[in-house]
Amino acid sequence: MATGTPLVLDRQMFCFTLFYVIHTHLFHCQQFLIPFKDPSGCGVNEFFDISSLSCAKCGANQRKSSSGLSCICQTGYKTKHFSSNKVPFTCEQCPPDKPAVTKDGFGCIRCPGRLDDNGNCQCPSGNILVERDINGTFFDEASCEACIGDSPAFTAPNSNGDRCERCQATFSNTFCTCQSPNVQAGGLCFPPGSFSTNVNPSVSYAQLAFSIQSAWFVENLYSSAAACLVFSNLTACQALGNMCVMNMHSFTGLSTDACGLFNTISRSKAALSSVQDISYWRANLPWLYYGDEPGLAGQVLQNKPVPLSFSFRGTKKNTDIQLLAAVYNVRGDFLRWDPIGGNNLQLCPEQAFKQAAAFSFGTTYQETCELSVAELLTTHPEPLFYDVFMDLGGGDNRKLLPLPTLVQNQQYNGQFINQGSMQNWYLSRRIFLVDTLSGREKTLSSLPKVIRVATSIKIRFQLVPRTQEGQIYPPLVSVSYTDVLIKEANSQTLPVTFSVEYEMDQSEARTKTDTALGVLGGLAALYSILKTVSWKRRIASPLIDMETMLKFLLFYAGDLANVFFAVTVGTGLYWLIFYKAQQFVSVLLPLPAQEEQFETYIGCAFALKAVQFLNKLILQVTVDVFLIDWERPRSKASRTVPATKETKQEPSPVSIWRTYFVANEWNELQTVRKISPTFQIMAVLFFLEVLGFSNLALRDPWSTLERSPAAYTPPYSLILRYGLAATLWICIGLLQVIFFTVFYEHFVEDKIRQFVDLCSVSNISVLLFSHRCFGYYIHGRSVHGHADTNMEEMNNNLKRERESLCGQRGLLSNTDIQTFQVSFTNRLRLQYDRIQDSLSRRNRPSRLIDASAANLSELQFKAYNTMNHFLASVIDHAHPEMDYIVKDKLTLERVIGMEFLEPIDKSIFYNDERHSFSDVLFYGNEATLLIFDTLFFCVVDLGSQNFVLAAVLTYLQQAMFRFIRNTLGRRNLVNKTLVDQRFLI
Amino acid sequence: MATGTPLVLDRQMFCFTLFYVIHTHLFHCQQFLIPFKDPSGCGVNEFFDISSLSCAKCGANQRKSSSGLSCICQTGYKTKHFSSNKVPFTCEQCPPDKPAVTKDGFGCIRCPGRLDDNGNCQCPSGNILVERDINGTFFDEASCEACIGDSPAFTAPNSNGDRCERCQATFSNTFCTCQSPNVQAGGLCFPPGSFSTNVNPSVSYAQLAFSIQSAWFVENLYSSAAACLVFSNLTACQALGNMCVMNMHSFTGLSTDACGLFNTISRSKAALSSVQDISYWRANLPWLYYGDEPGLAGQVLQNKPVPLSFSFRGTKKNTDIQLLAAVYNVRGDFLRWDPIGGNNLQLCPEQAFKQAAAFSFGTTYQETCELSVAELLTTHPEPLFYDVFMDLGGGDNRKLLPLPTLVQNQQYNGQFINQGSMQNWYLSRRIFLVDTLSGREKTLSSLPKVIRVATSIKIRFQLVPRTQEGQIYPPLVSVSYTDVLIKEANSQTLPVTFSVEYEMDQSEARTKTDTALGVLGGLAALYSILKTVSWKRRIASPLIDMETMLKFLLFYAGDLANVFFAVTVGTGLYWLIFYKAQQFVSVLLPLPAQEEQFETYIGCAFALKAVQFLNKLILQVTVDVFLIDWERPRSKASRTVPATKETKQEPSPVSIWRTYFVANEWNELQTVRKISPTFQIMAVLFFLEVLGFSNLALRDPWSTLERSPAAYTPPYSLILRYGLAATLWICIGLLQVIFFTVFYEHFVEDKIRQFVDLCSVSNISVLLFSHRCFGYYIHGRSVHGHADTNMEEMNNNLKRERESLCGQRGLLSNTDIQTFQVSFTNRLRLQYDRIQDSLSRRNRPSRLIDASAANLSELQFKAYNTMNHFLASVIDHAHPEMDYIVKDKLTLERVIGMEFLEPIDKSIFYNDERHSFSDVLFYGNEATLLIFDTLFFCVVDLGSQNFVLAAVLTYLQQAMFRFIRNTLGRRNLVNKTLVDQRFLI
Repeated sequence: MATGTPLVLDRQMFCFTLFYVIHTHLFHCQQFLIPFKDPSGCGVNEFFDISSLSCAKCGANQRKSSSGLSCICQTGYKTKHFSSNKVPFTCEQCPPDKPAVTKDGFGCIRCPGRLDDNGNCQCPSGNILVERDINGTFFDEASCEACIGDSPAFTAPNSNGDRCERCQATFSNTFCTCQSPNVQAGGLCFPPGSFSTNVNPSVSYAQLAFSIQSAWFVENLYSSAAACLVFSNLTACQALGNMCVMNMHSFTGLSTDACGLFNTISRSKAALSSVQDISYWRANLPWLYYGDEPGLAGQVLQNKPVPLSFSFRGTKKNTDIQLLAAVYNVRGDFLRWDPIGGNNLQLCPEQAFKQAAAFSFGTTYQETCELSVAELLTTHPEPLFYDVFMDLGGGDNRKLLPLPTLVQNQQYNGQFINQGSMQNWYLSRRIFLVDTLSGREKTLSSLPKVIRVATSIKIRFQLVPRTQEGQIYPPLVSVSYTDVLIKEANSQTLPVTFSVEYEMDQSEARTKTDTALGVLGGLAALYSILKTVSWKRRIASPLIDMETMLKFLLFYAGDLANVFFAVTVGTGLYWLIFYKAQQFVSVLLPLPAQEEQFETYIGCAFALKAVQFLNKLILQVTVDVFLIDWERPRSKASRTVPATKETKQEPSPVSIWRTYFVANEWNELQTVRKISPTFQIMAVLFFLEVLGFSNLALRDPWSTLERSPAAYTPPYSLILRYGLAATLWICIGLLQVIFFTVFYEHFVEDKIRQFVDLCSVSNISVLLFSHRCFGYYIHGRSVHGHADTNMEEMNNNLKRERESLCGQRGLLSNTDIQTFQVSFTNRLRLQYDRIQDSLSRRNRPSRLIDASAANLSELQFKAYNTMNHFLASVIDHAHPEMDYIVKDKLTLERVIGMEFLEPIDKSIFYNDERHSFSDVLFYGNEATLLIFDTLFFCVVDLGSQNFVLAAVLTYLQQAMFRFIRNTLGRRNLVNKTLVDQRFLI
Repeated sequence: MATGTPLVLDRQMFCFTLFYVIHTHLFHCQQFLIPFKDPSGCGVNEFFDISSLSCAKCGANQRKSSSGLSCICQTGYKTKHFSSNKVPFTCEQCPPDKPAVTKDGFGCIRCPGRLDDNGNCQCPSGNILVERDINGTFFDEASCEACIGDSPAFTAPNSNGDRCERCQATFSNTFCTCQSPNVQAGGLCFPPGSFSTNVNPSVSYAQLAFSIQSAWFVENLYSSAAACLVFSNLTACQALGNMCVMNMHSFTGLSTDACGLFNTISRSKAALSSVQDISYWRANLPWLYYGDEPGLAGQVLQNKPVPLSFSFRGTKKNTDIQLLAAVYNVRGDFLRWDPIGGNNLQLCPEQAFKQAAAFSFGTTYQETCELSVAELLTTHPEPLFYDVFMDLGGGDNRKLLPLPTLVQNQQYNGQFINQGSMQNWYLSRRIFLVDTLSGREKTLSSLPKVIRVATSIKIRFQLVPRTQEGQIYPPLVSVSYTDVLIKEANSQTLPVTFSVEYEMDQSEARTKTDTALGVLGGLAALYSILKTVSWKRRIASPLIDMETMLKFLLFYAGDLANVFFAVTVGTGLYWLIFYKAQQFVSVLLPLPAQEEQFETYIGCAFALKAVQFLNKLILQVTVDVFLIDWERPRSKASRTVPATKETKQEPSPVSIWRTYFVANEWNELQTVRKISPTFQIMAVLFFLEVLGFSNLALRDPWSTLERSPAAYTPPYSLILRYGLAATLWICIGLLQVIFFTVFYEHFVEDKIRQFVDLCSVSNISVLLFSHRCFGYYIHGRSVHGHADTNMEEMNNNLKRERESLCGQRGLLSNTDIQTFQVSFTNRLRLQYDRIQDSLSRRNRPSRLIDASAANLSELQFKAYNTMNHFLASVIDHAHPEMDYIVKDKLTLERVIGMEFLEPIDKSIFYNDERHSFSDVLFYGNEATLLIFDTLFFCVVDLGSQNFVLAAVLTYLQQAMFRFIRNTLGRRNLVNKTLVDQRFLI
């Protein structure tokens, strides 16, 4: 394909660089720009050359044809063909004696009458123009002939006006014109008096609050109604029905609009037997209405199950919803049976397999999009009407179930009855999607003033209560139309929704939930009372006062939070398991509206848990703690030196560093947890977002984790989302607890155990008061007498202990138990308070002057020493009036967390091998923390539907509370033990 | 609408419960089931009642019409109407004397000849049947009349066979039949010898390796070609061109298939002037091919910019790509100018505004979907052909730029030339989307054997290099067709892609990147040499051995990693800023294929950084550390007691607890960082996933963070993703560093500072050897002489110090500087090694027997005491041969991290107020850690395109290395300081 002629250079306006290609000797920097032309842009004597896409001149005496793509002869010129010539034809003027051009344009002829605008002969109406004889020869002069309308010919001119043809049947009973008193309408001829001509051809647009005289109704309403009634014409009846549907099925008592006429005819046919044994379906008429008995809707929708069984898995898996529609055009012609599933009811353009998801049972479907009004006008010139059925299958004996339709816009005597309660619903049948026809006011070809679009189509499936077989009631098609006033069709858009919803009666589930809540709530109240009693005993106060009530409420808040949490997680898990794993469909998820109560429960759980958590936090940062140093100055206690002359010598001071060490470690223990909170967050995030567990919370029955990004994604169910997140959080938390307690603390490190060991090695005991007269004691008296020694001796001590060459560490000789729960006598506590008073009271004023905690007075050190001495002597049984006994706790005491014995005379030390002193640390309250974190995570997620945000906020919440707990805990420790906070690092 | 007749009960097979509704006296438990019927399912004597959707009986002598929706009279019966009757018509047998029924069915007539199957009269071919006279009256007997084909009537029977009409123009030159030697083809009559009838009507399916005789080609190829050549018929030329397009533009040298004929005709028209001044466009013919000069494709595509300017923002914002297509049907008719943008080139169903995103300049678009073959067959019965132009606008002077097309399937002499390099490309024009026509083998109504679908349409825009005005070269439309053999149309699907791609020449950017890498890489090498030299000096080894080389490589790895990191982040940031923020388009993102080199760079950066990180980790866990206890036994040093009689007394041992405390704190410092790594991850995740920063990495020019979920989402750009993630990570990291160093460490706590203070308070110095002869010294000698004392004295000491009643803490008197970098003399190191040897060598064998670190021998304690004493005396200047001097480091020394003075005689203590001893901790290597984390995060993300996964893995990586560092660091500390690991908690 070598290039031909050189190029015209003046067109090359964008030719910056010239390439001289030697090979072809041509300039190749051509831009290839062409001007835009279209057929309508060509002149009267030009045609659009479809090859070059430009306008080209017509031949002589020619003008543009109506399409603009070719030329035709001018008026008065006939067409003449020449073969093998570049010019396809020429035009020749007709001679004066034959001034008219024949209708086919190829001949000239004389006319019997006048010429029309195109230069053809014109005949009077009712006559036909004859130009050729039967064999095709042109006459010299055309003739006008009348058609015989009488029997037996019954002819009238055809539409071209060149032939006599049989006239329409309704005209033919007498003559081929509809003569008075017959009434001609819509191309038909009605006998006199058959039907009142007083009809109201208006369409009412309730949303826009006006009605218009529709051209389509003006043209067809009377004739359709009359033909339906008089001739029992099936298509006319359908056309009338369609007009009623276009009028939103709305009617008043007695009116002459489309639905009024339909009802009139319907009533008149009541005597005939009904169709298909359905009493609302009259012969020859379409079935548009169910009856008007009160409560009929409920009976139709919830009375009898559909004889079908849906099953999600197994051999009988059946999730296909097969809907079928009888499709009619606006003229009432039956077009076809259409299986619904493609885009016939779904206006939104979407890939076929996404749209197919709408008809998979159990998959909540919702597809919304914005449609351009301009596009609707071109794609839907006329509405189609759908009578929707459910296909029940059955081979040769295939059955269909007509689906009741609820038209939200339907008015009865001016009331929107279908927007109220089901009691008043008027069910109907037949819907359309887009009606751009009824809104045309003057002519059918004009632009419509208003269009009507089914902007919301919802198919609602309702499960039969307590079914085990996946049975449903007849599904309801709910349609809502929107009237759109056409102003700027090109820029107007319209949101359109198609949705499928699944519903079951949730009252039973709700009753069960409420019952569980009631029962558990009552137990929680009892348990809280028990806790309050225990607390009263532990603070050694018999009075029931405001504080007791408050305390009870706080306990109750915590227990009630647990109840709410258990019930909500149980419910979520129930739905997750039963919905996702069921074979025959027996449960369906609650709808979003039905989830509100559930959300309230979660909110309650979170709020109550937060109260409990904050209460625990406050208690923990105000706990009383004292470190008892057992070390005595060495010079006094040195073993081998005779004690004669050194009595005067000042003993070398006992080093405080062991106390610092223990206090430092205790400080570090404050926010240690049984799990790693960050790992927890990361693991949950990993499961939900990376492994795709979040897909389990989608509103469909599938339990696959991986979804194709192209597949349809249903909305999330709040309940499933909560159930999933909470379960996952709790499970990972429990796994972590098990890992840390079973594996990590045995084989890597156990911080609590380490602390107890440290106490023992450092010769320091820890006394904690969690309540006024209740607390914990960690016995840390060194078995070697001295711990304040150098490295060599320390190592020797440790070595001796490992080789069991010394006593055991326990408080009682020959026992190992170092940790105790303690019920103190009131007397001991009073004494403790007295010393503590001087320890801390002096502290406070000085703290007001100088914030540094180092400003300790000598009195405080004295008090510190006194306290140390006092507590050590109590432990050593040196105070007979404050003696104590050691015993085991009863199993029941352990279980209900309450001591049966009251410490009247002697304090009671309960052996406690399970280190329950960690109750004053985060460590011992893992359950509360875990549930609080879970609820926090879930509440954020429910609010934002975003697991990542929930994870980030949960992290921040944890970090914040850890910081608060650490800061306040350290300050408390400084105040209570007098250890300078600079050593708590 | 009251209900009518009672229901037939035996149909109520699903009626479980009967509700007796008193109001209507009717049973309401009706199931409303109807049997399924369709028109084809009704019997011969039944019609489908569109009202009741059931089959109904026809009247007497009637049968089903072809549509099945009504009845017609049986053969030999005429139709008779009655008005006002329920039966619309009856049928009456024709009398024997008039046995035939007229064509309109309403009359009986006698025939001149035989009757046909429908009972109508039959005439010989070329004759017409006349049943009525001109006025419509039936004749008693019909007649057959011949049409006059001669001039001037030129008539032939019409398609109904009841009238003579003008015959086709090409027949009309002689007579209305095409007589030999004329050739009749495709309804036309060609003069003899005008065109060889030897044509090849086969369509070749190269992908399936066969060709078929296409019914369409058989019918139309010869006639189109002949009409195009002989009559210059415009539509015939287009139809011929379309057939060539359906044949993939493929041609061989001289052949008679569609493209061969097209080229023959094209060559024959070379003499005529070309169309629109484009030399490849011949008059009357469609423009299908560009020329065949070598390299023409390059010239067409990359020679001249399009006279348009694209701009992303500002007043001249212009991102609309306006494409226009001239649309032809398969017969060659011009249909319309179609603005491309809806779904005319996009086969995938998608919402309009999503599809519109494809034509927003700069938005990389790709939409893929699976189409059902069955649906394609129904929606595309005939192909449409598109000549695509770019609309340059310009009001009245509107210009179009024809877009060159590259058909991947095009063959030239059997070679797929367009799948190779651009040098050999044959550009063409005109595409189609779906061709279900050419694959029909026998008849046009048969099911096609093969269909052809444009499964990939890609529009590629190329930016003019170095443009500042957003100029582009002519875009290229690249089409790839797929041949689909029809087997099971209902289950066959086909993936279809439409994409828009933007490209610019990246060689310049690549050169710049490589230059930067080269220059910086050289600098890095120099810097690494410097580091190696410094290292050689610090280990006091003058030899250049393998270890030196290895060390150099390690240093180089780290520096090169930084270079790669800087260059890649710089590049990513460059694209992020310049692409997203440009006004006039001057840069476009690299295509995925062009990103490969970039990925390699990131990989290098990560691998090298990992090497550096691991090296640092190993060095840190093997560092030599010793805690020097300054405390002397108190009985010796007690201030007031006369020292006469107590010389024999055993001094009370110096408590080891201060050492434990310091070691414990040092242990806790190991993995402290300048930032919170978890917060870092959470913050990055928050910005990327919650605030939507990840949307900045999409391949479109918009910089909005919030995208509507319904809007089109372009694919991600790897470079932008990396640039974004790395920048975000680094920025948040820097902000954290600033927050922690400026705010947190000043106002809350500074762990490094705390540790130094602790040393001072506890009377313990720390000596660290990071190299053999280089290390750090933290001077912790208490200013009070004793630290091993009780709480009261400790507090007094602290109080005195606060009130400046005692000396300063510095090593030199009256200074505050406690931290030093130290260059040790070789002699000191040898001595240290000697003692260290006995400290640790004995340790090892015993460790092999018993893993517990507590098995320390007495020799070790001796060595420990010796070491303590030795180091203390060195610091105290008690070893004249191992003396030291204290000086400031020069600024240059600080900057390049190297000491100029060699410690020959005396060790040199450099003042170091910036705590550079943290270099042996995580704390001092924040940059390395931060960059390593960044790269880890980015590499995981690049591999998985999932920020959440990257975050989770980064967290695990951090946790793992922290655990390793802690465990090994603690073991090292235990070995080096003899502190029992049970105290490092």
